[in-house]
Amino acid sequence: MTTPYFSKRNLRFLLFEVFNAGQLTHYPYFEAHDRETFNLVLESAAQIADTLMHPYLRDIDKNQPELKDGKVTVHPKIREYLTAMGEAGLIGAGFSFEHGGQQLPELINASVSFILMAANNGMMYIGLTSGAAHLIASFGTPELQETYVPNMLSGKWQGTMALTEPQAGSSLSDVMTTAVPQPDGSYKIKGQKVFISAGDHDASDNIIHLMLARIEGAPKGTKGISLFVVPKYRPDGNGGFTDNDVTSTGVYHKMGQKGVPAMHLTMGERDDCIGWLVGQPHQGLPYMFQMMNEARIGVGMTAAAIATAAYYAALQYAKERPQSRRLNEKNLLDAPQTPIINHPDVRRMLLFQKAVVEGSLSILLECSRLSDLIHVTEGEERETYQLLLDLLTPIAKTYPSEMGVQSVSQSMQTLGGYGYTEDFPIEQLYRDIRITPIYEGTTGIQAQDLLGRKVTMKGGKATQLLFAEIRRIIAEASTHDDLKPYADRLEGELKRIHDVTMSLLPFAGQGDYERFLADATLYLELYSIVTIAWQWLKQAVVAKQALLTQNPQGDELAFYEGKLHTMKYFFHYEVPKTLGLAKRLQDTEVLTIVSEKELAL
Amino acid sequence: MTTPYFSKRNLRFLLFEVFNAGQLTHYPYFEAHDRETFNLVLESAAQIADTLMHPYLRDIDKNQPELKDGKVTVHPKIREYLTAMGEAGLIGAGFSFEHGGQQLPELINASVSFILMAANNGMMYIGLTSGAAHLIASFGTPELQETYVPNMLSGKWQGTMALTEPQAGSSLSDVMTTAVPQPDGSYKIKGQKVFISAGDHDASDNIIHLMLARIEGAPKGTKGISLFVVPKYRPDGNGGFTDNDVTSTGVYHKMGQKGVPAMHLTMGERDDCIGWLVGQPHQGLPYMFQMMNEARIGVGMTAAAIATAAYYAALQYAKERPQSRRLNEKNLLDAPQTPIINHPDVRRMLLFQKAVVEGSLSILLECSRLSDLIHVTEGEERETYQLLLDLLTPIAKTYPSEMGVQSVSQSMQTLGGYGYTEDFPIEQLYRDIRITPIYEGTTGIQAQDLLGRKVTMKGGKATQLLFAEIRRIIAEASTHDDLKPYADRLEGELKRIHDVTMSLLPFAGQGDYERFLADATLYLELYSIVTIAWQWLKQAVVAKQALLTQNPQGDELAFYEGKLHTMKYFFHYEVPKTLGLAKRLQDTEVLTIVSEKELAL
Repeated sequence: MTTPYFSKRNLRFLLFEVFNAGQLTHYPYFEAHDRETFNLVLESAAQIADTLMHPYLRDIDKNQPELKDGKVTVHPKIREYLTAMGEAGLIGAGFSFEHGGQQLPELINASVSFILMAANNGMMYIGLTSGAAHLIASFGTPELQETYVPNMLSGKWQGTMALTEPQAGSSLSDVMTTAVPQPDGSYKIKGQKVFISAGDHDASDNIIHLMLARIEGAPKGTKGISLFVVPKYRPDGNGGFTDNDVTSTGVYHKMGQKGVPAMHLTMGERDDCIGWLVGQPHQGLPYMFQMMNEARIGVGMTAAAIATAAYYAALQYAKERPQSRRLNEKNLLDAPQTPIINHPDVRRMLLFQKAVVEGSLSILLECSRLSDLIHVTEGEERETYQLLLDLLTPIAKTYPSEMGVQSVSQSMQTLGGYGYTEDFPIEQLYRDIRITPIYEGTTGIQAQDLLGRKVTMKGGKATQLLFAEIRRIIAEASTHDDLKPYADRLEGELKRIHDVTMSLLPFAGQGDYERFLADATLYLELYSIVTIAWQWLKQAVVAKQALLTQNPQGDELAFYEGKLHTMKYFFHYEVPKTLGLAKRLQDTEVLTIVSEKELAL
Repeated sequence: MTTPYFSKRNLRFLLFEVFNAGQLTHYPYFEAHDRETFNLVLESAAQIADTLMHPYLRDIDKNQPELKDGKVTVHPKIREYLTAMGEAGLIGAGFSFEHGGQQLPELINASVSFILMAANNGMMYIGLTSGAAHLIASFGTPELQETYVPNMLSGKWQGTMALTEPQAGSSLSDVMTTAVPQPDGSYKIKGQKVFISAGDHDASDNIIHLMLARIEGAPKGTKGISLFVVPKYRPDGNGGFTDNDVTSTGVYHKMGQKGVPAMHLTMGERDDCIGWLVGQPHQGLPYMFQMMNEARIGVGMTAAAIATAAYYAALQYAKERPQSRRLNEKNLLDAPQTPIINHPDVRRMLLFQKAVVEGSLSILLECSRLSDLIHVTEGEERETYQLLLDLLTPIAKTYPSEMGVQSVSQSMQTLGGYGYTEDFPIEQLYRDIRITPIYEGTTGIQAQDLLGRKVTMKGGKATQLLFAEIRRIIAEASTHDDLKPYADRLEGELKRIHDVTMSLLPFAGQGDYERFLADATLYLELYSIVTIAWQWLKQAVVAKQALLTQNPQGDELAFYEGKLHTMKYFFHYEVPKTLGLAKRLQDTEVLTIVSEKELAL
């Protein structure tokens, strides 16, 4: 491995200096761990990433899954990887001891996933399995748990999330797959699902679909959806397996993330597809939201990881590639060419990438920490963390995805023509990351979730809690003269969000949701920039403290000063974008709502 | 052809209603033409596009050029296409009758290129041939003209632009290919060139490189570069041809635009590569700038064309794909799902695409019109047009490229998961368009050209002329009550550019070009938004006039109202971005310039 694809130092900084992973071990649930066990897990992930994943980045892209004679073949390294992950206990690392896991904090699991996806995002199988197993562990009967969870956590069986149907992409109200009750308590399943990631492949011995379907006679809409376990091969109770009539109808050929098959599946062609209900009837959607919220954070993490890998490739190139002379020395034709990192425009592109990727990782780990605190606290404290996580989820999914796309684009631009060729990994990463603003609810859906649901829930309590958190950092930053101007700016941005929100809320009050949500995507963008500014100020406070108290030298000094520098970059280059966004959001001219007068485009 | 890939109505609007193509025929040089001949040419291009290009969009992408045994094989349809283009007289359409052309205005030629590239940008061969032939026609000896131009315009021989070398990407000062004078007046060429588009292929009988090289003993830097014709097979003067020792060393495998081979070439491996000087020694760069400027506009046009094709694919999908109910009717679960074009967020994405693609085409045709006027006028009038074209070239190259990338990304987002698959053309167009911010001078290079050269040349005269042009439109718009607010906003944006420029100029005055140009890319973005706002206001004035005087009905009414609507969209959603850009550009905190204190990233 010649090109580094992530920064261990930065991950350590976030985990142990910013988010205090060590503190979590004071809670009884995590008391079996300490910083050493955390590091062992991370090292074990890094070793799998270095040896089994990163070397096959291009090869997996070049050999995409194919469907032949009903069988989906994936790259042979994938089985090896799944086995290694199972053996290292990394699939169920976050599960309780009771469920066969390591009871590790999500903060560490998320970091493992970051390392793995930075190495090779085409091997995006594990998160699906652990999310699906988590649903069974949370809501399934003891029998379902016993049958499925251990085989999934060992890496032998693949889990999936089977929601989308041809006629119901973003509209789960319109899910039509049916479930007919059988005398033995199981259900006969009939229907179609599309875009099911890892929905079939030959690197696992079984595929376990966590599937939404409608029990005969169920209410219309999302209130009539139930959750089922639908395996590819169903256990016959005597250690044998029967084909469960889940047919691979097609595999989508995608622009990127080619390692993972996206499947079109048909259930019940022979009227012999059996599913088992998870939890209560008609409660499928609330259950599935557990997996979906985990998956949304997972998508954000995948995006942050891809953008990080591209950033390090661009950074290395910029340090090594000589081109032209510095602008103030243009006429020194005898002088050697300078590495392009010395050109302001290239440096600007690199700082942009660093600001995006490290800001993204930071908000994602913030969410993981909240998830851990939800696990170990109760009552009002727990509710606070839950509200914060609910509010931040659409942001932690979308900012890394949308800005990650732009960041990888700037990585490519840093290399110029070479970046567009297969001689460097960036063209692949550019293709790979583009799915992330689509996966698990597009950016438009996330924006409606933020403004239409999260901002308004409980009378706006989540925003109040978040602002209080942000103001805690503003107060800390204000004690340092050189951070105070940024603290003041962030306070100004909070007021901006407040004003914009107040100007939009009356439309919701009038029941005019089209008007209320017309520019929700811009609202999400505005809110996200401010959220990432908070994460940067938070990092800067820690870096400042380290500079004041630890007298760091050499690389350590550069690391902390780099944090302060990038925080400043974010405030001087990225935060000003809120001006234009707020102007539009407070603008009264309506241009996107359909009306009689509206024109064919 | 089921999906339209461009709008004939919009092209007609721009050509004949906005840019008055007919007026050009009053100049003697264009007097052989009228609106009818213009339409015949456009129809002939559309027919080639429909039959020979668009049907092979995917197939050409799937069968990229390969280098085997020194031979580069391209898709068989390409020879057919080149022959048809030659026979239709479309390669040399803009050449004078004297040089075997049709003496057509650039306004029409550019429109031809728009249609062709919208159909299939993987067939990007013609612009290179006509640009190279144009260099020979402009500066070559009669012998060179006679030998090369007719064979190039007939489509038999391919032209290229051979500038870039492995050690000299954006830095032409560092070109090292050498030319040693021979007794017969020719030169022996030795060196390497990289990223030469169409630099070798089997769809042409010969490849004619217009190549930059340094004559032995020439001054250092760009002042020692000369221009040569270097053919793949050199004519022996008796109708025969000799291999000219230009070796295909490699073909780059690219993320997109896979139809055109990007070649690594080695000249003079056997010491038998001959070149012929074009024009005067050491004047190569000024000559090449003719082709480079044409190529820059051509890249902008390619980007606008790709983004247009993606927009029409997205628009069709949005009209046909039902999904969910309207936001104010969420609970009507019995109602059928609504086409997604009725969702405000989708409509916003579509309006963004329309605003970008039609704004881009407009500024590109503005440039073509300037180029025509330069051809037919003299003295001060000609100088005015030349200054305007010089100023607008980096904008007309960059805005369509950079915003086209974003536009195609929104086309993909409109389709959701389907957009990411090979079932629709958008994933290919997303890959194809990404090269355009890199081709012919990256965005960073264009930005330095705009701020470092074009804005300051002749004491800022070009900007004064442009602002006068823009104010002419502002005055016209101000006579209509409903356009006046937009006219006023555009005037405010001119002041913004002025203020930003004034705050930056002192650094140039002090000779501190690093500081002056540090954020040139943001300056280009700001300037471009205002320029495109001008184009939209210009279109809106014409549309308004048509609505007032022609009493249009049905589709025609919708077309003109759509123009007004999209102009408003641009002012309400895109123009506000200048607020954040100006804030950064007037900000005094320097973060990207290398200094002792600067950190390793």
